[in-house]
Amino acid sequence: MANCSAARVASYAAPYDVPERCTRPPTVRSGSVRARLAFDHLGPRTVQVPYEAQGPADAPATVVLGGISAGRHLAPTTSDPSKGWWPGVVGEGDALDPARHLLIGIDFLGGKTEDGLLRPVTTHDQARAVAAALDELGVTVASFVGSSYGGMVALAFAELFPERTARLVILCAAHRTHPMATGIRSVQRAAATLGADTGQPARGLALARALAMTTYRSPEEFEERFSHRPLHPGQPGRAPARFPVEEYLDARGADFARRFDIERFVALSESIDLHRTRPVSLPPDTLLVSFDTDALVPPWLVDELATRSGRCPRHVTVTSLFGHDAFLKEVDQVASLLKASLPRTPEVVR
Amino acid sequence: MANCSAARVASYAAPYDVPERCTRPPTVRSGSVRARLAFDHLGPRTVQVPYEAQGPADAPATVVLGGISAGRHLAPTTSDPSKGWWPGVVGEGDALDPARHLLIGIDFLGGKTEDGLLRPVTTHDQARAVAAALDELGVTVASFVGSSYGGMVALAFAELFPERTARLVILCAAHRTHPMATGIRSVQRAAATLGADTGQPARGLALARALAMTTYRSPEEFEERFSHRPLHPGQPGRAPARFPVEEYLDARGADFARRFDIERFVALSESIDLHRTRPVSLPPDTLLVSFDTDALVPPWLVDELATRSGRCPRHVTVTSLFGHDAFLKEVDQVASLLKASLPRTPEVVR
Repeated sequence: MANCSAARVASYAAPYDVPERCTRPPTVRSGSVRARLAFDHLGPRTVQVPYEAQGPADAPATVVLGGISAGRHLAPTTSDPSKGWWPGVVGEGDALDPARHLLIGIDFLGGKTEDGLLRPVTTHDQARAVAAALDELGVTVASFVGSSYGGMVALAFAELFPERTARLVILCAAHRTHPMATGIRSVQRAAATLGADTGQPARGLALARALAMTTYRSPEEFEERFSHRPLHPGQPGRAPARFPVEEYLDARGADFARRFDIERFVALSESIDLHRTRPVSLPPDTLLVSFDTDALVPPWLVDELATRSGRCPRHVTVTSLFGHDAFLKEVDQVASLLKASLPRTPEVVR
Repeated sequence: MANCSAARVASYAAPYDVPERCTRPPTVRSGSVRARLAFDHLGPRTVQVPYEAQGPADAPATVVLGGISAGRHLAPTTSDPSKGWWPGVVGEGDALDPARHLLIGIDFLGGKTEDGLLRPVTTHDQARAVAAALDELGVTVASFVGSSYGGMVALAFAELFPERTARLVILCAAHRTHPMATGIRSVQRAAATLGADTGQPARGLALARALAMTTYRSPEEFEERFSHRPLHPGQPGRAPARFPVEEYLDARGADFARRFDIERFVALSESIDLHRTRPVSLPPDTLLVSFDTDALVPPWLVDELATRSGRCPRHVTVTSLFGHDAFLKEVDQVASLLKASLPRTPEVVR
């Protein structure tokens, strides 16, 4: 058990400097680096790592990583004006402001590529991909804000490359997963695989995603949001009964199946269940954030990481109706926690 | 809000007599009654209702109903020595002893039969089937012990036939379901249907059941029971990673698919989500039992039934690791509660 005396905590200083003023203007760099990585199970493989960086080149480098359906595009740019995956938290004037940080994102590895099938892929493999993108950008040391799968990747990066890790803020992620979450994800993968095997991949993937959605939210939220009464009770021999929550889950599943590849889904889902870092590799001064209704990464699991790390990290559990998805929904709380924890330039750089 | 003064509670006397001594020996009657029932959605239909009754004909009639995979056979008999679905609770020397009760069970209606496809079917339809079996057995008034789906059916019986309802003990059931539970069951039905539509019904049904198993237990139990580490991490291009919890869920799913019909599964699953009784139809002197980790029928939902009934029923919430399945696993607690609540013959009849 760590000795969390005041003296020990005070000695944990972040190993980087925050400039008082950035001299370089914000720029956007978007591309793909071809890198040879030492995969945990696949062995040495040459792959493409798509990345995007926006901000002043001398602002604190901050890698921002999200769930399995998040990607490298973090905030609107002139060439890509679409919102990123974390609106309200990442963007101009937000907690993670491209005028005050050098914000870096990647597209995760996994699934079918022109280099072959990347599976199994681990969170450590993703961390190696991040390192390759940082090399390409000329970044030596970076802070990380990782949510969900991205939080697992950030933990893996800190374990592989401690000397390149400044500060970590980890939301809805831990050093391992737990069996119920693994069980439900294994059912998702089996549903996707059933669809793929029977010539109905979109249907299988939509089903997997519908199930995933039930794990991202909370029973309390659904009780408030949906009537339990059927839309219609079903017509004998013709149509089954339909329920409001079912319409919602089906719509979310169908959306996902239109834009996501089934092989990629299975590889990344499996990657979550293969994830494992040693708690003692947690860097000093980490902020861990959990949400009380998160069924996938419950507070007790994040607490286990905090306790076993021996590092006395700060662990904040936020009350929310929104379960695992709370990192996306509780924008105000998340923004405050990030502003309180991460180094960024004192002045906005234009 | 009900006025639960002592005077009012005391006036709720069960409308039946318990004989001091039964004069008739225990017998077994097993068969099927052909009855014309007024289905809620199917209209008037003639169906077979399989039933089994064991015990002295003049002992208190006690209908015992379980989950969707439970059936009419409650305890070993000479013609069928197999255990019933509720060992430790129903059987010789147990809380529900065929030497002290006239124990009655039915096979639920639903799915493909020689009379055509029975779907949609409601819990009130099941209650009408129970009434037909009671008529066949010459039983006018019965107590009910209903767990899970069987508890819903018991509530529906009390709503339709209050004059035939003695005492209710309801475990893991309420007047309605809640949207998260409906959402997850809708995914189960979609998985089964995907299998049926693509020529893989066993695979679809096994998948549905694997998912159902995750809802019947608790994350806490799985955390104690299964390692989170993979059995093997998967071989690139050949085999996916496998996890201990996954082996368990797959085995339970495959077992179920061998012995259960997919149409029946879908009809009964849908029946749960169509279930609705008016709380004010709850009979006097009902015992409601919930388990703290039951995600399908959480204590707050049973509390809603208790409060809205206006009847001041006794509601006991039992602490258990086993979630919804606790009614099967917490044998000692369930037995005590039943012995404390149900009328039975003072002496064992041989």
